[in-house]
Amino acid sequence: MRAEIISVGTELLLGDIVDTNAPYVSRQLSTLGIDVYYRVTVGDNVARLSDALKTAFSRADLVITIGGLGPTEDDLTKETIAEVMGERLVTDQESEKVIRDFFERRGVQIAPSNLKQALIPEHGFAIPNGMGTAPGVGIEKDGKIAFALPGPPGEFIPMLDNSIIPWLSDKTAGTASVIVSRTLRVCGIGESAAELKIKDLLDNRNPTIAPYAKSGEVHFRITAKAADKESALTMISGLEAKARERLGEYVYGIDEETLEYAVVRALIERKLKLALAESCTGGLIGHRITNVPGSSETFLAGVVSYSNKAKIDILGVPAELIEKHGAVSPEVAEAMAKGAVARTVADVALGVTGIAGPGGGTPEKPVGLVYIGLCTPDGTEVTRNVLGGSRQDVKLRASQSALNMLRMFLLH
Amino acid sequence: MRAEIISVGTELLLGDIVDTNAPYVSRQLSTLGIDVYYRVTVGDNVARLSDALKTAFSRADLVITIGGLGPTEDDLTKETIAEVMGERLVTDQESEKVIRDFFERRGVQIAPSNLKQALIPEHGFAIPNGMGTAPGVGIEKDGKIAFALPGPPGEFIPMLDNSIIPWLSDKTAGTASVIVSRTLRVCGIGESAAELKIKDLLDNRNPTIAPYAKSGEVHFRITAKAADKESALTMISGLEAKARERLGEYVYGIDEETLEYAVVRALIERKLKLALAESCTGGLIGHRITNVPGSSETFLAGVVSYSNKAKIDILGVPAELIEKHGAVSPEVAEAMAKGAVARTVADVALGVTGIAGPGGGTPEKPVGLVYIGLCTPDGTEVTRNVLGGSRQDVKLRASQSALNMLRMFLLH
Repeated sequence: MRAEIISVGTELLLGDIVDTNAPYVSRQLSTLGIDVYYRVTVGDNVARLSDALKTAFSRADLVITIGGLGPTEDDLTKETIAEVMGERLVTDQESEKVIRDFFERRGVQIAPSNLKQALIPEHGFAIPNGMGTAPGVGIEKDGKIAFALPGPPGEFIPMLDNSIIPWLSDKTAGTASVIVSRTLRVCGIGESAAELKIKDLLDNRNPTIAPYAKSGEVHFRITAKAADKESALTMISGLEAKARERLGEYVYGIDEETLEYAVVRALIERKLKLALAESCTGGLIGHRITNVPGSSETFLAGVVSYSNKAKIDILGVPAELIEKHGAVSPEVAEAMAKGAVARTVADVALGVTGIAGPGGGTPEKPVGLVYIGLCTPDGTEVTRNVLGGSRQDVKLRASQSALNMLRMFLLH
Repeated sequence: MRAEIISVGTELLLGDIVDTNAPYVSRQLSTLGIDVYYRVTVGDNVARLSDALKTAFSRADLVITIGGLGPTEDDLTKETIAEVMGERLVTDQESEKVIRDFFERRGVQIAPSNLKQALIPEHGFAIPNGMGTAPGVGIEKDGKIAFALPGPPGEFIPMLDNSIIPWLSDKTAGTASVIVSRTLRVCGIGESAAELKIKDLLDNRNPTIAPYAKSGEVHFRITAKAADKESALTMISGLEAKARERLGEYVYGIDEETLEYAVVRALIERKLKLALAESCTGGLIGHRITNVPGSSETFLAGVVSYSNKAKIDILGVPAELIEKHGAVSPEVAEAMAKGAVARTVADVALGVTGIAGPGGGTPEKPVGLVYIGLCTPDGTEVTRNVLGGSRQDVKLRASQSALNMLRMFLLH
């Protein structure tokens, strides 16, 4: 089966919003072994949407449109699909009921334009939308399949995952080959150095392994094509084992597991309590740690000691230390980490001080210089990091280095 | 002039990366009054790229391709454009020199495939790439214009901004009308309520005003089409004044100005020092404040008091208060804000406590319940907020409500 994706919306075409739905559906289709050869974006214009639909049906078996299902007069995707497929639109009773209930519960008068959202092609079917009033529609006719889904990702993604993908999965069962991927997430080593370690594996044809550089980390995506998911996973496991052997402890997680997730999980496993003392990262490390559900099991407190006075008063960093070495120094990073432990009865703490820029740099202490102290029951260590990029890049990379330093400690 | 954008790359089509280049070029072209009717994504496949190019030339005067200019055998954009336009590829001496110098400086042996990057169509011209080895190419022939640019945004964006846009600006000078936009950023009011306030303005044809809902705020984009930039700006100012009259203090900034930027600017103007006491937001408010360059002028310190003990020990919240009312209560939010002021000699402080979820909710205190205390020289106030969405949504919306509460105080 071959698919084409059409994203509909003038705001997409003007570049006002970035389309994340189309890549999402691409990934989901590839796991079913459905090839996507073209993706097209058109505005809210019937003639051009009609043209895009005709072209898509001429070269694909399955067309998925995203957007243009709202109640306004600009929203014309269903009408255009119906016209191109020679279908009349009829009211879907169940969808109408859902829409009427929605407005009734809110005590809002329903407008006729809202009822337009209950229309579906006469030979089609409605796809329930748990997060909004616009149902999607599906239709299978003359050997072609079309799905129309709403544009807001909060509605689009659940409808795709819960209705379209299972429907297509049944449809393609036994006929197509599947594509399955797994991402190895790597931190603490640069992209080139990491690539060098698995250089020979990069030539592998099936499964393949390909690097993607992210800010402060590298992802290696392993992709296998096979007759079924199980065979693909077996192929992936073989290549993954080889890659892990080469990359060792630099691998911190797979797929959607973040670095902060790996750190929180390891802290909880080892029953260690964490405290933070942040200066240049401004709270970002605490924010990342607390993005992980359950982090309250290990995370006690953070101090964002942006001013010198806060370093002295809250963390107990000796004033003389700051005077002698400056606030950005290995001595202060160490004292911040120690102070965070002392202040909170934590087992481990990070202390981060640096110059995020764009101002504040000197020849001796340039923008991007960041010292990270790690205080543990084994003692305290400090690393010196020189990080590139904008203010936000420096903050992100400093948080990355600090979390990775903590992760490495927790491994041993 | 009408343009079509073709993004080239199998990694785009598989959904491995999100295409931010195509929206960027859309926005830049709209400022020149160049309409984009279609955007197309194709993989690294000569036949399908050739097909997409022919279709694009049949309905547009200008075609911009993004990607496929690398040294590998998958990179075939230039070759395909040359074939479709009936051009031979020849070596551009200047580009070859740049590539040879690049490798020489690094002491790396140059591969023949790298010299492929110096090829340009015989009637075309090279577009210098200050950030990589792949020059772009441009060609004007038989009334059609084509540009091919490399895919990495760090190379693509400077080449577009420094070479293509000025070239097109000369080309369209005097002939095209320009499109100019300004975004009004609004916070503290829901999308529907904000829209209602400017309902009649939404029918305006030129300039237009259109709402875009963001997480915790609403953006209104005003767009004018006129013969020149100055006339467009005058038209925008007229509609902007009307919208501002209706939206009043809900408008906190324009274009790229963030809420944290507005808050930091107002604090510095009023010479007030800020402290933070964060629980459920975990450091996010400190992170946002310190994303603003120069925030060290006003921001003294934050305490991320995730555990009750940290609320008591570091912020001086009375233990009885937590016992009696619970950590998520208006009383504790107030005591946290007061404690942050007392601990740091700040003039104003926020105290934020709530349940970010997904666990930890009860019927009385559900997930999403967040109390925000604001302590100022005028006294302390507390708001109760019930916020929807995932753990990260609740954190973001809580930070948004807290920053907006502080902004409103600073306005008066």
